[in-house]
Amino acid sequence: MRFEKVAIIGLGLLGGSIGLAVQEHLPGLATSGFDADPAVRERARELGLCQTIADDPAEAVHDADLVILCVPVGAMGAAAEALAPGLRPDAVISDVGSSKQSIAAALSAVLPDHLVIPAHPVAGTEQSGPDAGFASLFHQRWCIITPPDGAPQDKVDDLAEFWKALGSTVEIMDAEHHDMVLAVTSHIPHLIAYTIVGTASDLEEVTRGEVIKYSAGGFRDFTRIAASDPTMWRDVFLNNKDAVLEMMDRFLTDLAMMREAIKAGDGDLMFDQFSKTRAIRRRIIELGQDDARPDFGRSHDEVGKED
Amino acid sequence: MRFEKVAIIGLGLLGGSIGLAVQEHLPGLATSGFDADPAVRERARELGLCQTIADDPAEAVHDADLVILCVPVGAMGAAAEALAPGLRPDAVISDVGSSKQSIAAALSAVLPDHLVIPAHPVAGTEQSGPDAGFASLFHQRWCIITPPDGAPQDKVDDLAEFWKALGSTVEIMDAEHHDMVLAVTSHIPHLIAYTIVGTASDLEEVTRGEVIKYSAGGFRDFTRIAASDPTMWRDVFLNNKDAVLEMMDRFLTDLAMMREAIKAGDGDLMFDQFSKTRAIRRRIIELGQDDARPDFGRSHDEVGKED
Repeated sequence: MRFEKVAIIGLGLLGGSIGLAVQEHLPGLATSGFDADPAVRERARELGLCQTIADDPAEAVHDADLVILCVPVGAMGAAAEALAPGLRPDAVISDVGSSKQSIAAALSAVLPDHLVIPAHPVAGTEQSGPDAGFASLFHQRWCIITPPDGAPQDKVDDLAEFWKALGSTVEIMDAEHHDMVLAVTSHIPHLIAYTIVGTASDLEEVTRGEVIKYSAGGFRDFTRIAASDPTMWRDVFLNNKDAVLEMMDRFLTDLAMMREAIKAGDGDLMFDQFSKTRAIRRRIIELGQDDARPDFGRSHDEVGKED
Repeated sequence: MRFEKVAIIGLGLLGGSIGLAVQEHLPGLATSGFDADPAVRERARELGLCQTIADDPAEAVHDADLVILCVPVGAMGAAAEALAPGLRPDAVISDVGSSKQSIAAALSAVLPDHLVIPAHPVAGTEQSGPDAGFASLFHQRWCIITPPDGAPQDKVDDLAEFWKALGSTVEIMDAEHHDMVLAVTSHIPHLIAYTIVGTASDLEEVTRGEVIKYSAGGFRDFTRIAASDPTMWRDVFLNNKDAVLEMMDRFLTDLAMMREAIKAGDGDLMFDQFSKTRAIRRRIIELGQDDARPDFGRSHDEVGKED
């Protein structure tokens, strides 16, 4: 590992997991951390998320040759401004945010003389905060790096090595394509989940108690995603507007087609559509991106099951 | 248990699970089964899903005082017709289907002289077929019984006792309300999942390989539901049309509002909507209807996790 010290700015699920993963997989790499919330810093010290937790962002990045911003997309610019005074001139600036074009622009505007190489580990859970982190979060997950034009190859390689050491597979992509891909694999699924959970909780004909009791029919799956951090997700939608709107319109077109099929009683169309989708799940499981056990391997009280 | 012999017609996930659960929890109750597919009957015999597996539906229901149809909603009428010749006059006819008004009508039309008490255990996985069943599927799950007007209370009670013995909590509801509740907790979530998985697999800008690799961003959750049985779900949508269309229109109205908020950059509206949804998940977990562990307790390679 060519980096000597990584500074992690923002110590929630992602930042905390990076701190733990570095200490486990890259013990020679020094870790320092900062979070704008004093209570989070306190908890991060108790949990040992980094070797040192600074009370000032400029102090956290002192001597660091890699700085990773792990704050909501909308807070990137302000976080970069706050740490700028302590920054080494040759430090590589990276992040973990879910919309790459807007973050690249925000960071480069605040740190025009620094090398900014955005990255996005496609990993997470619905939980947030310093207690949510764990060192294996990035194992067997993809990390997408979106280097700007002209970024020095050796620095891109160093960042790729960093993520590989944490257990990830690295893919290089341009930021615009990243934003389109993530709109469909992550942003639209979150928006749909938030929306249907909202729809269900506001109904008059069906009580909230009924929605909860009978959620095992499918609804409960959506509530997990809809339990994700509201600030983080608001910022994603504010910052990946074009791709999200484009993908949403594709989805709405397809949903309108399904609506017509139901209205017209067109069972053949439904059957064809419903039959196409199993192959994708099979590939996701083969690639180790989901649990092969039924129901995600959720705990059942499996008295009668023989496995 | 007042019933002496239960006949299970259709030996997939639900029928097979009932057979196994009865043998475990109600060993005094005789079980016989039938499936229209000879290969499924063969496999059901190997797995011991019921004490006897008949090659003829009329033979399977011989002497049974409880008959449970576990076939797709659209196949209920034909299945009832096929077993009618062997039916005891006092047998209670029930089922496990996900749309209650249409099933009640279909079964009563074919068996006008029999007592039909529809039921719906709200339980399942994305898998189907005789190998998918397990005895604890109904543990800690709700079973909704929708007795017709004038159904004898003692028979309704007997059926409720049957489901309680299998580990379920029983709720009595009228069929119309059931269909509205399940439209929102089960049918619309499945329709949305099938649709977004279809949308994602048909994109030109984003390859199917990319959708699969980066599915851990949220998309993979939808692929589980979208791997459910196409025949079963086609029949649900054909048979609960009105409630599904009504609930879909509520969802579409809310999604249009979110679309406008994204377009207008209205972060406050998004934040408010995204903040409302955590409470529902908390209650679902408190009620034992989902796994409290992050990510549904999916298996991670949790080298660094301390729990």
